[in-house]
Amino acid sequence: MNGFDGMWGALAEVGRDRHTGGYRRDAWSEPDLALREWFAEEADRRGLSRYEDRNGNQWAWWGDPSAAPGVVTGSHLDSVRDGGAFDGPLGVVSAFAAVDELRARGVTTPPRPIGVVCFSDEEGARFGVPCVGSRLLTGVLDPARAAGLTDDAGDTLAEVLRRAGRDPSGLGRDDETLRRIGVFVELHVEQGRGLVETGAPVGVASAIWPHGRWRLDFAGRADHAGTTALADRDDPMLPYARAVLAAREIAERRGAVATFGRVRVAPGSANAIPSLVRAWLDARAPEEETVRGLVAELSAACPAEVVCESWTPVVEFDAVLRDRVAAVAGGLRGRFTGEPEILPGNVAEPSRAGGDWTEGRRDTPGGAPVLPTGAGHDAGVLAGAGVPSAMLFVRNPTGVSHSPEEFAEREDCHSGVTALTAVLEDLCGLLV
Amino acid sequence: MNGFDGMWGALAEVGRDRHTGGYRRDAWSEPDLALREWFAEEADRRGLSRYEDRNGNQWAWWGDPSAAPGVVTGSHLDSVRDGGAFDGPLGVVSAFAAVDELRARGVTTPPRPIGVVCFSDEEGARFGVPCVGSRLLTGVLDPARAAGLTDDAGDTLAEVLRRAGRDPSGLGRDDETLRRIGVFVELHVEQGRGLVETGAPVGVASAIWPHGRWRLDFAGRADHAGTTALADRDDPMLPYARAVLAAREIAERRGAVATFGRVRVAPGSANAIPSLVRAWLDARAPEEETVRGLVAELSAACPAEVVCESWTPVVEFDAVLRDRVAAVAGGLRGRFTGEPEILPGNVAEPSRAGGDWTEGRRDTPGGAPVLPTGAGHDAGVLAGAGVPSAMLFVRNPTGVSHSPEEFAEREDCHSGVTALTAVLEDLCGLLV
Repeated sequence: MNGFDGMWGALAEVGRDRHTGGYRRDAWSEPDLALREWFAEEADRRGLSRYEDRNGNQWAWWGDPSAAPGVVTGSHLDSVRDGGAFDGPLGVVSAFAAVDELRARGVTTPPRPIGVVCFSDEEGARFGVPCVGSRLLTGVLDPARAAGLTDDAGDTLAEVLRRAGRDPSGLGRDDETLRRIGVFVELHVEQGRGLVETGAPVGVASAIWPHGRWRLDFAGRADHAGTTALADRDDPMLPYARAVLAAREIAERRGAVATFGRVRVAPGSANAIPSLVRAWLDARAPEEETVRGLVAELSAACPAEVVCESWTPVVEFDAVLRDRVAAVAGGLRGRFTGEPEILPGNVAEPSRAGGDWTEGRRDTPGGAPVLPTGAGHDAGVLAGAGVPSAMLFVRNPTGVSHSPEEFAEREDCHSGVTALTAVLEDLCGLLV
Repeated sequence: MNGFDGMWGALAEVGRDRHTGGYRRDAWSEPDLALREWFAEEADRRGLSRYEDRNGNQWAWWGDPSAAPGVVTGSHLDSVRDGGAFDGPLGVVSAFAAVDELRARGVTTPPRPIGVVCFSDEEGARFGVPCVGSRLLTGVLDPARAAGLTDDAGDTLAEVLRRAGRDPSGLGRDDETLRRIGVFVELHVEQGRGLVETGAPVGVASAIWPHGRWRLDFAGRADHAGTTALADRDDPMLPYARAVLAAREIAERRGAVATFGRVRVAPGSANAIPSLVRAWLDARAPEEETVRGLVAELSAACPAEVVCESWTPVVEFDAVLRDRVAAVAGGLRGRFTGEPEILPGNVAEPSRAGGDWTEGRRDTPGGAPVLPTGAGHDAGVLAGAGVPSAMLFVRNPTGVSHSPEEFAEREDCHSGVTALTAVLEDLCGLLV
């Protein structure tokens, strides 16, 4: 059996770009198919009953989930382009390792079935929409819209699925699979430095910040870069530059984050004044009104057409489950025979995070730190669809994510497995 | 015979994009080959002896240029992407129209041969290097380097030439063709508003400003746009934005122009803080030291790696020829039987243009206005190679160029033909 380190090593080179050192694991690409094979092999090694659901999500069950809803853990194996090794795979590898740990402790049949899941296309790197697998499963994403999504080569998801031997006509909400999920716990590398400041290797998610994406079109007049006097120019690069600086200033003042990570310039020649600068703003904050206020203030301050391309409301994870997971993950074992003793009344009110992730924490004495995140996750999709869900975070010393430099200490990863094992034990009723 | 208006109408739809209304006449593309056919037909209609030289430039001669160097006029037919109708074609159409006008005045054999030229790939839209035809002709561009230039599809110029039935082994300096050019006069639409301010429909070039292109690399650290606290970010979009604003301020203060028309962002996802913003600065001014000073000041002020990708020194057109052309184009006909009477001593010193193109004018009383330009031209390449060269500009009411909105009034175009005809008459010795 491959332990954590063995599994980790087996994934290290799959889809890794030799030049950037980052991973390119687009959904349904060759590396993604190799990762699916790997998942199946690890499930088979453990004698778990596995299947792939109609939406491409992979499941491996210990026990029979058709008898009673189970305790599910896992994450995803695809990556953003030039992403790191941890975002996604850490949750899947830790899930298998936790199963191994429970067996090593002598558990032969868990009181409730335990499921390991790998959600399909979480990052949306190929088709532009994140969490495709969990959104289709829960019915949040329209299957016809999903089937028609296109990648850079112009191929639709439906075509890509067919080429991979899958049947796109099966896409869509899957109640049979959903009914098997009694509770979902996703372990994930932290993507900020909240845990670094607490000194704890493992934390628990309180909420996923609301976030949105806006397209800003700055229109100008194409003209010759050499012959057009400055006074005669209508150069949209200037208001775009002012908007970049304004967005940062407004975000700082309002306690939000704002990013311009994608820009298109037309006609895009070095010797032509642009006719159009199109830029995408990603904005997030603890409260929805903070994000909306930021965008309203920026829109008023700059001469751009502003179109909202996506909006995801705040996700507050189930408070009772959250505190129970935090207590167990922090080492407060065996205290939960019935209702959790740690109740929401014990935690502080959320404060404005102001771009400082530690401010939003609501800690349980003796438990793992509780903190919000600005990143979307499958656990957030499931929580939004009414599935009791929680997240464990593993400390990230630099906070860097979506980058080849993404990192977690091996010792912290092992602590993550230990915490996840304890949480599975608790949620299965093994802790008394 | 097609007159000016007929020729103009024949070109109107060649390579025109229906959506943008702009022209896409890349060198050696289908539209470019159609334009070459058009040139050949117009030459044949007039009984001119035509040939294409080893570098793809088309020539049509009235009289025998092997007997004595001739008076050459013309321009180019290719375009920037989504360019206007006038940049290039106006000079070629006016050249044929001027030949017609001379014949209408009864000239049967000009005392010196008159040549009409269409230079190949002036804009460099396809292979990234402008004035390929004139630079190869004069030996300024290394033929091996030219042959290896690649387009967006990865095809080399050599392959593209072969596909078009041309022999790339013939590329390079062509002394036989050069010897035929006694003097070159290029008529071109103005690309600024200098003539608008003088009230004259036609002007003459004094100089082409020195200009350069610099690549600025702003490096940062890729990171998650949602989870990375503002304080933990190394986002290169912010120093890029400050550089855009600084370049404008420095250009205004120093009397230059500066443009950021092309930007690439890596990884380029809306939800990722960029690891790299790569931007290209185009900077020009009347004096070389002004351009270099602008770039030095900007480089010192921003945390970017700055690499000079191209540098073109100032081109001062032959002063005697310039004033002679200005006098004739302005209507001072028949005064030049020997040396021009208008000598350089009659003109004011060039002043700093400060982005105001009219400041650099050196006018001859009674002659056409004389003004500098910030745009490169085949006439500048020839002048740099020692060929006596001059340029006529036709008024552009908005100054807009390299854009579908580029425009000149038909009446001003006709004035351009009249001026060019007079200049050809003079330079051929017909004016006494």
